[in-house]
Amino acid sequence: MKKILNDPQNVLDEMLDGFVYANGHLVERVAGTGVIRRTYEDKGKVALVSGGGSGHEPSHAGFVGQGMLSAAVCGEVFTSPTPDQIFEGIKAADQGGGVLLIIKNYTGDVMNFEMAGEMAEAEGITVDHIIVNDDIAVEDSSFTAGRRGVAGTIIVHKIVGAAAEAGLSLQSLKVLGETVIENTKTIGVSILPATVPAVGKPGFELGDDEMEYGVGIHGEPGYRKEKLKSSKEIAEELILKLKEAFGWSKGDKYGVLVNGLGATPLMEQYVFMNDVANKLTEEGLNIQFKKVGSFMTSIDMAGVSLTLIKIVEEKWLDYWNHEVKTVDWM
Amino acid sequence: MKKILNDPQNVLDEMLDGFVYANGHLVERVAGTGVIRRTYEDKGKVALVSGGGSGHEPSHAGFVGQGMLSAAVCGEVFTSPTPDQIFEGIKAADQGGGVLLIIKNYTGDVMNFEMAGEMAEAEGITVDHIIVNDDIAVEDSSFTAGRRGVAGTIIVHKIVGAAAEAGLSLQSLKVLGETVIENTKTIGVSILPATVPAVGKPGFELGDDEMEYGVGIHGEPGYRKEKLKSSKEIAEELILKLKEAFGWSKGDKYGVLVNGLGATPLMEQYVFMNDVANKLTEEGLNIQFKKVGSFMTSIDMAGVSLTLIKIVEEKWLDYWNHEVKTVDWM
Repeated sequence: MKKILNDPQNVLDEMLDGFVYANGHLVERVAGTGVIRRTYEDKGKVALVSGGGSGHEPSHAGFVGQGMLSAAVCGEVFTSPTPDQIFEGIKAADQGGGVLLIIKNYTGDVMNFEMAGEMAEAEGITVDHIIVNDDIAVEDSSFTAGRRGVAGTIIVHKIVGAAAEAGLSLQSLKVLGETVIENTKTIGVSILPATVPAVGKPGFELGDDEMEYGVGIHGEPGYRKEKLKSSKEIAEELILKLKEAFGWSKGDKYGVLVNGLGATPLMEQYVFMNDVANKLTEEGLNIQFKKVGSFMTSIDMAGVSLTLIKIVEEKWLDYWNHEVKTVDWM
Repeated sequence: MKKILNDPQNVLDEMLDGFVYANGHLVERVAGTGVIRRTYEDKGKVALVSGGGSGHEPSHAGFVGQGMLSAAVCGEVFTSPTPDQIFEGIKAADQGGGVLLIIKNYTGDVMNFEMAGEMAEAEGITVDHIIVNDDIAVEDSSFTAGRRGVAGTIIVHKIVGAAAEAGLSLQSLKVLGETVIENTKTIGVSILPATVPAVGKPGFELGDDEMEYGVGIHGEPGYRKEKLKSSKEIAEELILKLKEAFGWSKGDKYGVLVNGLGATPLMEQYVFMNDVANKLTEEGLNIQFKKVGSFMTSIDMAGVSLTLIKIVEEKWLDYWNHEVKTVDWM
């Protein structure tokens, strides 16, 4: 394992302290916890809390701030935060208007966030939740019943975050979030596996000339290994899968997110975006917004994912374009 | 070589097209060139043009936009753009107020940017330039007489960019830029080398357990190879080198930039930032701003660099904090 670290057991603490040191104008850490909350207060409005295991940086702490998340609960690397920690996050985020939990669909996350929600309800905080399951690669997985939650989660943060700032009720935000989730689908490829610091070796194996379609953001198995394909071929296969899942028609309105998985440089992400653009144009889709970057990573995994969201309401575009103040979204 | 690409000879074109497709609300490509210019116009003010070989993404095109660069000239990977290309960039950027070129100190870049400046002067555009040489690792290098220009260039873009928007004259911006450069110093480490797509293999060698201090952003040799050290030890050595170069005293005001070199995930960058923070606190410096991210990369090199800037004028902080609209700075 070749990483710039100290004690692999201490990564979470040191990373969060470094994050808060660098970004103290936007975020703070709730002492003794893995909770990062925004310094911005929005009294009376619904607070959004997300999080999960660490190793997906800048998710989720990088999206805490005005117009997106109120707080992120950061567990150990690839490990769900405990209900106690999430409960701390809910309390830190609550502004008196209730709290919506945005949970990626992993069994541990769902269980722990729901339990924390019940703990908060018992203390008089109104809590509801939505579960993101955008990864169409496989049904059920190592840590998941159903489909996994991956990069589409960031789109949920953005759209629901802007709506929360606009003052929508908890119930309306839940409905909005669920509609966005229904219309958001992702699929990715990995060309190099990730290494969890405390484990010290890659989570799965790939030959020197191999790639894998559909790998999860914790290295969960995908649906096919084969020789490394060109960017264009990868774009074509992923878009074919998305087309099957969406069943789109020419002229339909979509937004697109190309996401780097951690060790993939922007050079490759933009080449891939170019192939995606060509293919989407060929499909005749009406693309309303585009975004490229490493937003939902898997530590040092190399690879990309492609997320499409079908724009069901024009209002979503306003929410998408609404200005935010976070560390990693602009 | 394991990368998500098509023809390695065609990377620049595809990457720029992907970049502009994704970010057409902020930037456009001057047809048939490697020039990315902002869509924002600022008539009568001084335009800033930077650039150089590609492979340092998001530098420099990601910093084109209101409040930073007017245009970036993107050469082939690790290859200076030609004078013709830079001349196109100058013409595309000029708003009638003259053009300041921000050049990283590599022999080819300096020669070609200066030649382009003369071509533009011959057509009646007032041009001046500044040369960034912030890398204190070594004196002279594979492609450089004197010190190399690396991540400190981004600080120059930010501060001089805000000053240009504020309406400073070409002469004042040149003086400001040169003062910022005098007070900006960087040093880095590499733990994995970069691979230029058209070459297909790493630019230098490092053993499985080795790192190198002072490697340049094109893989130029540094000053010492040794066994991989901890983040804390790396932070201590780099800060010691910077201390020798600056000769600081307790209470001096500085800004700090931790920069990932391409394949290094934010997890490691933040752990490293935490060690840097502890050491700077021990040194008694008064840190006025901090920033962490992959801004000046070397394709898929793994490693980090550390830049410090001595704050000589309070006004620099206003320029630093001034809002910008670019793809990759916020």
